Amino acid sequence: MTEYPLRPVGRVESPLTDLSAAPRQPDEGAPEAWLVFDERCLPALDGVRPGTDMLLLTWLDRADRDTLAVHPRGDAARPLTGVFTTRAPDRPNPVGLHTVHVLEVAGARVRVRNLEALDATPIIDMKPLLTPDR
Amino acid sequence: MTEYPLRPVGRVESPLTDLSAAPRQPDEGAPEAWLVFDERCLPALDGVRPGTDMLLLTWLDRADRDTLAVHPRGDAARPLTGVFTTRAPDRPNPVGLHTVHVLEVAGARVRVRNLEALDATPIIDMKPLLTPDR
Repeated sequence: MTEYPLRPVGRVESPLTDLSAAPRQPDEGAPEAWLVFDERCLPALDGVRPGTDMLLLTWLDRADRDTLAVHPRGDAARPLTGVFTTRAPDRPNPVGLHTVHVLEVAGARVRVRNLEALDATPIIDMKPLLTPDR
Repeated sequence: MTEYPLRPVGRVESPLTDLSAAPRQPDEGAPEAWLVFDERCLPALDGVRPGTDMLLLTWLDRADRDTLAVHPRGDAARPLTGVFTTRAPDRPNPVGLHTVHVLEVAGARVRVRNLEALDATPIIDMKPLLTPDR
């Protein structure tokens, strides 16, 4: 089957470096982080404003792409369930979906609150959370 | 920069075949569609139930990946704005994000309401809309 190449547009800079220390949900204590976009992407960032919520899409590059079913929250007492009904990072195409709150925009660097992604995680896209316009 | 290969897990079957006829937002008249997953993904679908809302991630394979700024809704009277503040399909990594309502699950085929993706669009992931579990 055809493959499509994802080309990261930036990287996450975060104090989170350890999978086992990463919170399972952002409201469980995710730290602040910087989204460091490539300079060539500056025009794509035009209009990003502090104080707004955005959807960030990442590539969870440390995930296992062969996993099709998991025990939710890694709890072996819970029955195996298909990854498409969970937010588990292990899945055929490990796209991470994060709602982040923008604190600061400095050129191609964007500081955000509530990001549970590990340091150096590739960024693949960002979208507005609410605006219906396209 | 490193590239990552997206491997589609299925395709959209939809009466929508024409970009110009595609609704800009799902509440503007998107038809029913079938999500046709690869048979090998059946375990990943375990737990998907009719009557639930899901997030569907697609690869908008007809998008222009070199576009960094657009006129919202294609309206030239509106100022150019960075694609990361719009839902425009043209963007460096054209991942489509759709909230769909599951009507029927038949093996690896899932019938949904409210999908504005074109026929044959590659499916890359599906996630629960609300469940916080992972």
